[in-house]
Amino acid sequence: MKVAFQGEPGAYSEAAAAEMLGEGLDLVPCRRLEDVFVTVESGGDVCGVVPIENSLGGSITGTYDLLLRHDLQISAEHVQRISHSLLAMPGTDIAALRRVYSHPQALAQCERLLSAHPEWEVHATYDTAGSAKMVAEQRLEGAAAIASERAGTIYGLQTLAREIEDDESNFTRFIRIGREVAPPSGRDRTSLVFGTRDIPGALFKCLSIFAIRDINLKKLESRPDRGRPWHYLFYVDFDGHPRDEPCARAIEHLREICVLVKVLGSCPRAQ
Amino acid sequence: MKVAFQGEPGAYSEAAAAEMLGEGLDLVPCRRLEDVFVTVESGGDVCGVVPIENSLGGSITGTYDLLLRHDLQISAEHVQRISHSLLAMPGTDIAALRRVYSHPQALAQCERLLSAHPEWEVHATYDTAGSAKMVAEQRLEGAAAIASERAGTIYGLQTLAREIEDDESNFTRFIRIGREVAPPSGRDRTSLVFGTRDIPGALFKCLSIFAIRDINLKKLESRPDRGRPWHYLFYVDFDGHPRDEPCARAIEHLREICVLVKVLGSCPRAQ
Repeated sequence: MKVAFQGEPGAYSEAAAAEMLGEGLDLVPCRRLEDVFVTVESGGDVCGVVPIENSLGGSITGTYDLLLRHDLQISAEHVQRISHSLLAMPGTDIAALRRVYSHPQALAQCERLLSAHPEWEVHATYDTAGSAKMVAEQRLEGAAAIASERAGTIYGLQTLAREIEDDESNFTRFIRIGREVAPPSGRDRTSLVFGTRDIPGALFKCLSIFAIRDINLKKLESRPDRGRPWHYLFYVDFDGHPRDEPCARAIEHLREICVLVKVLGSCPRAQ
Repeated sequence: MKVAFQGEPGAYSEAAAAEMLGEGLDLVPCRRLEDVFVTVESGGDVCGVVPIENSLGGSITGTYDLLLRHDLQISAEHVQRISHSLLAMPGTDIAALRRVYSHPQALAQCERLLSAHPEWEVHATYDTAGSAKMVAEQRLEGAAAIASERAGTIYGLQTLAREIEDDESNFTRFIRIGREVAPPSGRDRTSLVFGTRDIPGALFKCLSIFAIRDINLKKLESRPDRGRPWHYLFYVDFDGHPRDEPCARAIEHLREICVLVKVLGSCPRAQ
């Protein structure tokens, strides 16, 4: 099976894909998150693995926006511990470092180490593993990448420091996206987006649809409705599967009172 | 009055501060968003102006997290149109450009122009105006910054292209933060954060506190509760002021059933 993900081999998404689907996958690295969606939509035996939420940073909002715009379904999830390493060409002395490359999010998560080294020039890049690849391919001297230890192994870099993230409770929830709906497993979580009419109490009415059926909402997130400044769409996660009786009725009820309802998929809960 | 903001003069935050408080302010540029909060908290006649929400990208989550951790109050808001320009050293020909510098968010908002020029090397930096300043100070050749036209004027750069953003409905809502509570104006919006007990229906109960009093919720945002992975805090904006009778009672009621309630401030609605 082919798996599309954002970044280069060694990206946290690729590690998550390996944990979800096994090693030895046929990898399709994509430059942008949107390219993953386009690749999966275009057909063939390919799924995608993308991050949806980080325990420190919150929702990966780009993923939510893409789930709305593309006709794909969430069909599995996996929680991955994120631990960063400082990677450089073999033989590099940490005292000789002058430049550090990584994704802005990873740089922000290692602020303690970076602020202890004001002599390091910090460069933001598009990808953690891509930074490791660049250091290796260009054999950059005095330079290091912040990426996964897995990326270091793939590109033959030396680990100068490991677990350099400020906060060890750093987990990312990844989802598998595909063109098929996963069948009920009995312990599912469903993700759905809705847009309310522009009347007072509209959001409250939508939430009561779940409350009166004892459907437990796990998450509620508002995102801008593009093109309608200061109007919002609401993303919810709830326990259950759209083929279960109460959930099916709740979704039907939601369609009665909303301007938009879209089921983004269901899968067994990872946590 | 002194105004602290993130970035260099010419940053969109500084332009918003000038619109809110008038030109000729005593500016305190700060490297990080957190430095703005620390500066304002440390006392003296200083307020801060920070972005809280973008009409395309959604909430500036870092600002929400800092409002929770610092004892400051929102006391005014302002909506600023965000329009990017491509700025270079005077005499630069756009055909000779090789490198473009800007904040990742601004780069993402100008993807159409950037993808039409695959020959440009794109560098992510910490700040839009800081990129303009760097191009000017280092007299970089073949390089341009994406920043406000205002930044171009401040640093003496030439505008190679203007309104280069993909989507013209690009607005950012900025807030003024200070140590004082703004008095009721009769047309206020209040921001508040709460944390629910870990029981089913907890969020629904909290929202009904507003609904039964006809208090209109404008926005609802969940953010990770740091240190408790997959637990959330909820940020709401609602019409009214905590000194108005129904709002005061709603807040009191919320404190009865929540583990955390913090009022982040009130100000007259900008939109």
